[in-house]
Parts: sequence; C-alpha cells; structure tokens
Amino acid sequence: MEKEIIVQKFGGSSVADIDRIKNVALRVTAYKNKHTDIAVVVSALGDTTDELEALALKLSQDPPEREMDMLLSTGEQMSCALLAIAIKELGFDAISFTGSQVGIKTDKSHTKARIITIDGKRISRAFKENKIVIVAGYQGVTSNDEITTLGRGGSDLTAVALAKALKAKVCEIYTDVDGIYTADPRIVKEAQKIKTITFEEMLEMASLGAQVMQARSIEVAKRFNIPLHVRSSFSKEEGTMIIKETEKMEEIAVRGVTCNKNEAKITICSVPDKPGIAAKIFEEISKQGINVDTIVQNVPHDKLSDISFTVTKADLNKAIKATNAIGEKIGAGEILEDRNIARVSMVGSGMRSHSGIAAKMFKTLADNQINIEMISTSEISVSCIISQDLADKAVKALHKVFKLEQI
Amino acid sequence: MEKEIIVQKFGGSSVADIDRIKNVALRVTAYKNKHTDIAVVVSALGDTTDELEALALKLSQDPPEREMDMLLSTGEQMSCALLAIAIKELGFDAISFTGSQVGIKTDKSHTKARIITIDGKRISRAFKENKIVIVAGYQGVTSNDEITTLGRGGSDLTAVALAKALKAKVCEIYTDVDGIYTADPRIVKEAQKIKTITFEEMLEMASLGAQVMQARSIEVAKRFNIPLHVRSSFSKEEGTMIIKETEKMEEIAVRGVTCNKNEAKITICSVPDKPGIAAKIFEEISKQGINVDTIVQNVPHDKLSDISFTVTKADLNKAIKATNAIGEKIGAGEILEDRNIARVSMVGSGMRSHSGIAAKMFKTLADNQINIEMISTSEISVSCIISQDLADKAVKALHKVFKLEQI
Repeated sequence: MEKEIIVQKFGGSSVADIDRIKNVALRVTAYKNKHTDIAVVVSALGDTTDELEALALKLSQDPPEREMDMLLSTGEQMSCALLAIAIKELGFDAISFTGSQVGIKTDKSHTKARIITIDGKRISRAFKENKIVIVAGYQGVTSNDEITTLGRGGSDLTAVALAKALKAKVCEIYTDVDGIYTADPRIVKEAQKIKTITFEEMLEMASLGAQVMQARSIEVAKRFNIPLHVRSSFSKEEGTMIIKETEKMEEIAVRGVTCNKNEAKITICSVPDKPGIAAKIFEEISKQGINVDTIVQNVPHDKLSDISFTVTKADLNKAIKATNAIGEKIGAGEILEDRNIARVSMVGSGMRSHSGIAAKMFKTLADNQINIEMISTSEISVSCIISQDLADKAVKALHKVFKLEQI
Repeated sequence: MEKEIIVQKFGGSSVADIDRIKNVALRVTAYKNKHTDIAVVVSALGDTTDELEALALKLSQDPPEREMDMLLSTGEQMSCALLAIAIKELGFDAISFTGSQVGIKTDKSHTKARIITIDGKRISRAFKENKIVIVAGYQGVTSNDEITTLGRGGSDLTAVALAKALKAKVCEIYTDVDGIYTADPRIVKEAQKIKTITFEEMLEMASLGAQVMQARSIEVAKRFNIPLHVRSSFSKEEGTMIIKETEKMEEIAVRGVTCNKNEAKITICSVPDKPGIAAKIFEEISKQGINVDTIVQNVPHDKLSDISFTVTKADLNKAIKATNAIGEKIGAGEILEDRNIARVSMVGSGMRSHSGIAAKMFKTLADNQINIEMISTSEISVSCIISQDLADKAVKALHKVFKLEQI
C-alpha cells in the first residue's frame, strides 16, 4: 500500500516557547503511523524574525538584502532543530533540514525570492527510513549556493510548494485561529466557522482583510490544486478546508463578511475634467511603489471633478506627498485625507449565479443609516467603503441579513 | 604585487552586542587596504551558544547530536551576517559565509567534528572582488551536506585552518585579554605580557591552566607553522605572538608560571603491592572516559602502598564511583578525595638546556612553607600539586624568584 503524505505547517506563535514546541511535537506525532508520512514546516520561534531584523537595523538603516537573508534564515533553522529534538524525545524518529539541504531552489531575489524547484529526494529518503521530516520554512537557496528568504508569510509558501513536490494529500496550516469564519468572531458573536471554502473565495477574503493566510500561498495552492486545511495548533477540532470549487458549493451565495480597517482615503478636489488626467495621477503614485485600491471619480461639475482613492494607512504619507506634487502640476484643488474609513465586503463564489447580492447589501447599510462613500466589486465580492466608526455595526447587520449564522 | 592575507578571529565576547560588533567592524576595516585581504572568523554573539544549548536541554536530557549541530551552528551564522552588515555600513565591501558555503568539509562526528579540507575557492573569488570575507566559525559540513560543529573553541580552529588554506601571513586571535602573561595578572601584579612564545610553550601553558586558547587549535597552528597573534579586541596594542621555536628564544629558561585550580585529588589507600594493580585501576577509570593527570604511588610499606591521582573537578564524582568499585575488587583500603588542591607549573622551552629549574622551584616553595603533595614534569615544564589555599602565594613567590617581571 502506498503511504499517504501530509504536510503540516506551524507558524511562529505555535512554536513561540518550549511548551508550545512540545505541544507541536505531540500534534505531529499523533498523525504519524505506518501508513502516513509527515513533513513539517516551521516558522521561526515567536518574534525571532522581528528581533533579528531589529538588530540589523541598529547596524544599518538599509542592511544589504543578501546579509539579511543569511541573518533571518537562522530563525527557522533554530526552530526546526528544536522541533526535531522534541519529536525524538517522544520516541519517534525525526530529522530537520534547512531549505538548502532539502533542495528548495529559488531565484536570486534576496528577501523576496521565488521558489523554482524543490528536489524532494532527500525527504523521500528520510520517509523511507520512517522519519518525520522537519523543514525550515521561509528559506531557500540559489543555484550559486546563496541563502534566500521568501518574504513575509514565506513559511506558508514553503509548505504549499513542499506539498506539491511530495504529492501530499493535504497541506495543513496550523495557526492561532481555528479556521476561517463567516465574519470576525470578535465583532460578530454568531459568526460560524466555515467548513469548506474555495481558493477564489479565500483569495478574495485574504485581500479584503482576513489575516489568516497570505494571498501568495493560496494562489500557489490553487494553481496546483493542493487542498489546504487551516486549523488551530491548540485544539484538535477540524478547521476550514480550502479547495477547488465544487458544484455543490455554488449554492451558497455569500460565504462571509470581511472588514478591513487598514486603509485610508485620499480625495483630490476640483480636478480639471480632461482626458488623460486620471492616468497622470495614478502613474505618478504607482511610480512610488504605492498600491491603490478602490478609485471613484465624481460626475464632473463645471468641467471639474473630484477623484477619491484608497491606499493602505502605511502608504498614506508617501501617497499624500505624491498626490500634492501631481495636484499642483495639473492645477487641481485641495487634497483631503481620511483615515477614518473601513472596507466592508461580502464574499462568495455563488454571487456569479445569484443576482441581487449588491442591492441587498446597499439596502442593509441604508436601513442602518450607514452612508456608502465608495463601492467596488469583483466577480465574487462587493465592497463598500464606509466610516470606520460604523464598520462593526455594518458587519453585524450584514451577517444577520444574509443569515450567515445558519451556514 | 601579491596581496597579503590576514585571518582575524573574534570570540563571542568581542561580538556580544551591537556596539561591540561595530567596534569589530572598525578593527577589521582598519587593516583592509589594497595590499591586504582579510578573512574574519566570528563566534556566536556573547552567550548565544549556551542559551541555545539550554533551550535544547529543556526539550531533552540527551538531545541528538545531529540536531544540536543544526541548532548551535545558527549562532555563528547570525553573527557573521551582522558583522558583514556593520562592515558594509562603513563603506567597505564584505560578504558572509557559513561553514558549508565556504567548503569547510569535516568528518561525520557531530558536535566534535574534525576539519578534513577547506576549499578556499569561494573566498579567493571574493578577495578578487576586493571583499572582506566573514566566515561563521565553529562549523563545517560533511560530504553528505550535514551541518557539523567542531566542539568548544571551534572558532579558533576554523581560523587556524582557514589561515592554512588561504596561506595567510598570520592568524590573529582577538580576545578579551591582550596577550599571554608570565602569570595571571589578577594574582601577580608584576606579571608581564610575553611578546613571543613557542607553540610548545603555549600548548604546555594551555594544558596547565592558561585559558586563552584551546590546545587543539595551537596544535594545528604548530603542525602547519601558522604564526598566531593573540591580542585584545578592545585595544590596538600588540599582543603575544605564538611561533615556531627560534635559537634566540632558547636563552630564556622559564616563560611563565601557570596555576590550575580546576583539579581534584583522589587517593586509594592500602593498595596491595602486586604487579598489574595500577593498570587495573586506571583501565577501569579510563573506561569511564575520565582523563587522569598526575599519578603518584608511594613506596610500599608492609606490601601495601597508597596511589594518588588527579582528575578535573567536573569528573570527580564519576571518578570516585569508579575508584570505589575497583577498590573493592582489588581489596584496597579507604578512598580519599581532596578538592582543595592547585597545580602550579613553570613552563619554558629553555628548560631543555637549563638544569636546576625544578630544584629552584621546590626550594622556593619550601622557603615559603608550602608543602608539595605531588610532582610531575614534562620536557618543558615542572608542576607541583599543592594546597589550593597556598596557590596564589606560590605563584607570586615563583614569579619573583625566577625574575619573570624582567622578561
């Protein structure tokens, strides 16, 4: 009988201290039996990565990226060795590997490398010796034997790529929440854990504010159709399965409500209504490496219109500077900024076949005296920018009207 | 003109924090110019190695050695990346390497590996690009790409082996003392820094209690005739050169006085005076992995003799247990232990040609009412085991009588 392979990924908070590492060792070994091989991917212990970064920043405002990769990759090497020690202490055989040892080959983009190939041979050999394999997440190696890291959230990526290389049945992402919810349970106490969700829905939810996994890893899982299981490292309950869309799933129109309070709105008043003006503005902003999200342009009035757009709060100052510069050049009026906004979104692949979701959303907000400042839609989501003070109220109302507690 | 190569090694206390790393960066770059290439070997930051070891011991009483090497090798990787960042910040080009990247191949003895070869190619390439090269000390890699460590003091060994591979002019060992002294300056305030000392003398002093460098690295330096320069990382003064013996050096009979308070004495009373008894005793003790130093057997009396020997204090309990067992078997009498001893030694290659050193030493101790419990000699040293309470008095007296303050 062919053995089944599971990839399990444990984040930094799951291995933050010795007791948690022991807990992870217990979790991992509970799944190991003669029919199942396990490859575990670990992040650095707790805040190690941030602490190492802080050390480097004390030496240089702009530390060389190659050296940052040398430095930061030690965090995962440390935690994978410690986990191997903890697992062996439980009487199971285990072996830890760095990204380099396990043949995770990347391109040469230090601090944000992309995985090119994974040579699963060394892991397969360890599996044949019935060993549990622990792999340092977040890191790889170039063809020149240079250590690289994959950027924030990189351990998820290691896990998904490994699952693909090993033809794993599932890639389990252990985290400090026990799954994906119909809304943030801290806001909506009736929020339900979602049993299954499609890659597209999860991608949409991630980009709209659900913090559980980074979009990049979900995209890779989607591309190679690797089922993800997001679950808690502190409980044995099943979490949320992220899978390819099935026919049955389409019956549910709305999967969840998300809320992102991390954006700010910039408005350029009295922009001359001439062709090419919007292009000029957003070209300038994009040159600064700033991502713009929703854009709204008013109907022009006296050949002048207002243009509003959102950026992340982190980018706001840079964006205001760029907007002021271009505003002056094109002869626009005042530049306004508003940090007190929130993006509330409904997500669900069923929207494709169910009409009226947007209308029902707008009506719900209106019924609750919540003014909609901007609207944007995708194939499987509708988002409204509203006042941040009213965001929780909006999420609660939408969750109720769309009966998400009954999912 | 051929460029000159210097290898510099900085220990853990030299890179214990950010300010010290900056200081090391200043020290290193002060030596870099167009005629000189520098390879720097660093230990882990401060107590990192001990801290990592303590973490592992919380997970297992007896952590697997392979995983310990994975874990402990991160300390040096961290410090070499940080030093590279600090050096680049000063406007010099630098690049850090792990032991594996720089081709430090070892055997497979995890936690105490021996260096087999060093492939200097990657370093030579970096030198051609005028880079300062930083190498993680204490670590290597096996032919199977397994990470190994070289045991305590391993960074010194990395530096010496690297100096050999790169044909360096000198291997500078930076430490928290500024050289080798004629006696411990904390005991003898007139103690003088020794300008030059032979490998043999340094080996003898290291084994007799001078803590500056481990014997293993000195042996390698001696074998390949690599001049060592032991100096302070906190001052620019010259330290002590450790070199091959020269004719001129022989004129000095005694190089220094050392004192080792780290031994204990075991006495087996009333041992039957039969052939092979001593062999039996020390075979049994050696089986336990305990190194015995000085051994003294009394002249037998009524066919019974007392046998005394010294072991390190760390090994004492184990040694007492083994001695009790064998004592019973051979029908010996009481087993006594004495922790209150010290080994005071005179060291100097000149002893080979100067007679009377031992006699002068014994007379000095007698003049000071210091009883000699055991004596041992080598070609270039004389050691006396005395009461630990009198050790400092003995060292001071010997330093004065042998006029070491005039060296």
